[in-house]
Amino acid sequence: MKPVTVGIVGGGQLARMLILAGAPLGLQFRILVKERECPAGQVCPDIHVGDWDNPEVLRQFGRDCDVVTLESEFVEAEALLEAESGGIRILPTPQSMATIQDKFLQKSCLESHGVPLPVFRAVNSPEEVIEAGSACGWPLVLKTRKLGYDGKGNTTIRDASDVARGWSALGAGRIPMLCEGFVSFRRELAMMITTFPDGSVKTYPVVETIQKDHICHEVLCPAQGDPAILELAARTACRAVEAVGAIGTFGVELFECHDGRVLVNELAPRVHNSGHYTIEACRTSQFENHIRAVAGLNPGSSELVYPAAVMMNILGEGSGDNWPPGLLDSLRNSSASIHWYGKTQSQVGRKMGHVTAVGASLDDCRNSATSTVRNIYRKPV
Amino acid sequence: MKPVTVGIVGGGQLARMLILAGAPLGLQFRILVKERECPAGQVCPDIHVGDWDNPEVLRQFGRDCDVVTLESEFVEAEALLEAESGGIRILPTPQSMATIQDKFLQKSCLESHGVPLPVFRAVNSPEEVIEAGSACGWPLVLKTRKLGYDGKGNTTIRDASDVARGWSALGAGRIPMLCEGFVSFRRELAMMITTFPDGSVKTYPVVETIQKDHICHEVLCPAQGDPAILELAARTACRAVEAVGAIGTFGVELFECHDGRVLVNELAPRVHNSGHYTIEACRTSQFENHIRAVAGLNPGSSELVYPAAVMMNILGEGSGDNWPPGLLDSLRNSSASIHWYGKTQSQVGRKMGHVTAVGASLDDCRNSATSTVRNIYRKPV
Repeated sequence: MKPVTVGIVGGGQLARMLILAGAPLGLQFRILVKERECPAGQVCPDIHVGDWDNPEVLRQFGRDCDVVTLESEFVEAEALLEAESGGIRILPTPQSMATIQDKFLQKSCLESHGVPLPVFRAVNSPEEVIEAGSACGWPLVLKTRKLGYDGKGNTTIRDASDVARGWSALGAGRIPMLCEGFVSFRRELAMMITTFPDGSVKTYPVVETIQKDHICHEVLCPAQGDPAILELAARTACRAVEAVGAIGTFGVELFECHDGRVLVNELAPRVHNSGHYTIEACRTSQFENHIRAVAGLNPGSSELVYPAAVMMNILGEGSGDNWPPGLLDSLRNSSASIHWYGKTQSQVGRKMGHVTAVGASLDDCRNSATSTVRNIYRKPV
Repeated sequence: MKPVTVGIVGGGQLARMLILAGAPLGLQFRILVKERECPAGQVCPDIHVGDWDNPEVLRQFGRDCDVVTLESEFVEAEALLEAESGGIRILPTPQSMATIQDKFLQKSCLESHGVPLPVFRAVNSPEEVIEAGSACGWPLVLKTRKLGYDGKGNTTIRDASDVARGWSALGAGRIPMLCEGFVSFRRELAMMITTFPDGSVKTYPVVETIQKDHICHEVLCPAQGDPAILELAARTACRAVEAVGAIGTFGVELFECHDGRVLVNELAPRVHNSGHYTIEACRTSQFENHIRAVAGLNPGSSELVYPAAVMMNILGEGSGDNWPPGLLDSLRNSSASIHWYGKTQSQVGRKMGHVTAVGASLDDCRNSATSTVRNIYRKPV
């Protein structure tokens, strides 16, 4: 038999961690990237450089792959559909990517399956934003339908007088937009779920995620609090993933509201920052289960191996092309697991790596992860 | 700061698993191999092809590495010493490799530190083998002082009339030899130990190893039986590693004798087949701790995360260049962890991969690992 080859579109840290999870199984990997120097390229010699939004490039890339998967939701669904019609097997399917990558279509799909969401509507002009504000109440969140992440491609609009500013900040209608009711949530939760071709599903614990400036800073596993709310969160996340009916690992971001409701904020059709803790904390990581799902292997157990885990991102503090001053010392001394992605350039707020601490309690883990991340940038603990 | 680069001499499965363990930390890897197509080359784009017994090649290879380590004990110590004198940092040190790679020097070092061993002596002629047999008793095991592994480079000599056969089978004195008293052991045990530059030591559990035709087939963790014997085995293994005073992960192979003695069979100055179970079963694997030790990082916890683990090797059943008939099915269906090394050629008895099952009891793990390995070659369970 021929070895199974998995193609990954993208070469960032998610592709890197997918490869590190799948290589032990003997699966072979190939990546399609825009630049040769990338985190995944350090663990994968089979690098194809090209524009993944070009269906011909995708087709060439996928020709000798048993399956092609994606590290991000930003590959043009049109290109994926065309490559698929040329005989390339792509998972999650281009059809499901088309629905998920357009936030308006995604939310419409979830709503039609009864998944609780903030109110939303597509808007095509500043006037329609004002109408939406009158109907749903202010403030509103204005978002681009595609390509937004980590707070990019979205802005909160205070009231009708703030619409012109928001509208021009997001491109003045050059790209399609939607707006959503602003949710004054109690906290944010998230859950990773992997669905397999045979219909089986592996769920990871509900976690609490702590954002700063719209970027995930910290993930606490398992989320603490009212078991009924956590149970509701898990049911809601499962229903959202079921609604889109796709194969692979999915991250579901949730709002826990002050009134006890749980709403789906967003569904990511891929391994997700809020699931990085699964590498150390779970029997099978989100990455391995994604690879298992798209390669047609059976599900690995998602059970927690430790009582608690805390993941913290290591975010760039400035521009630079190498290791921050305290990284080697931290690798030398930390009891937490440091993951460094090997990016060639740092930028303020860029995800350069992450730290996971596992242990007996969230408090212990949090202390360990916090001091590790601070030491990396030589900040007082 | 510059990223830390670790050079590995060798590109087999041990180098592959070292890279997979060290890459998440952001360490960069470079391998020196004799052929570009190799298990480690599939996860490491920085491949240097050359003869590692040539000090100039070693020096070139190591020039931009922060440290160079070895996947086998077969690199000529002379070449390592010369490369080190040219400014390359090598761990374990060439001095310790010189002692360990020559089984006579290794055993002399262990004996001088009071480590219990089978009787042994260097032999330079068939007459000296006969003398040794008269002094120590028959049968004797005749071994080449260097380069032996998995039963290669050794033969058991029944009695004086069998000496001529054994002598010529091992090269008729063209390479230096030693002989050892034959140990009629109850079973074989092993233990992995990592020593760090600051003197700290991480010990893994004592395991039972089951050989067939001199090749490791199965590792049971933790070894069962009399706690006093297991305690003695652990103390003996630690003393052996202490005796050679080197940095990195070491495998100690032990004989448990019928009379309750525990003897050191051999010390391997590297990650070892009897420690592969640590990938799933321990908080930090033998591979990660080896990389941590040679890169000057702190020790990771070696504690067992599951009550039991069983590792079984997947040995080639014939020649061929691809996956065995049941591998994909096994990857699809097994609950045990399959590691496939991606070797381009199979041979009878060649280590092509391994399987580890973790769980609540050795019996459960053994059943799971056994059926997985049999399915890979489509044998009845």
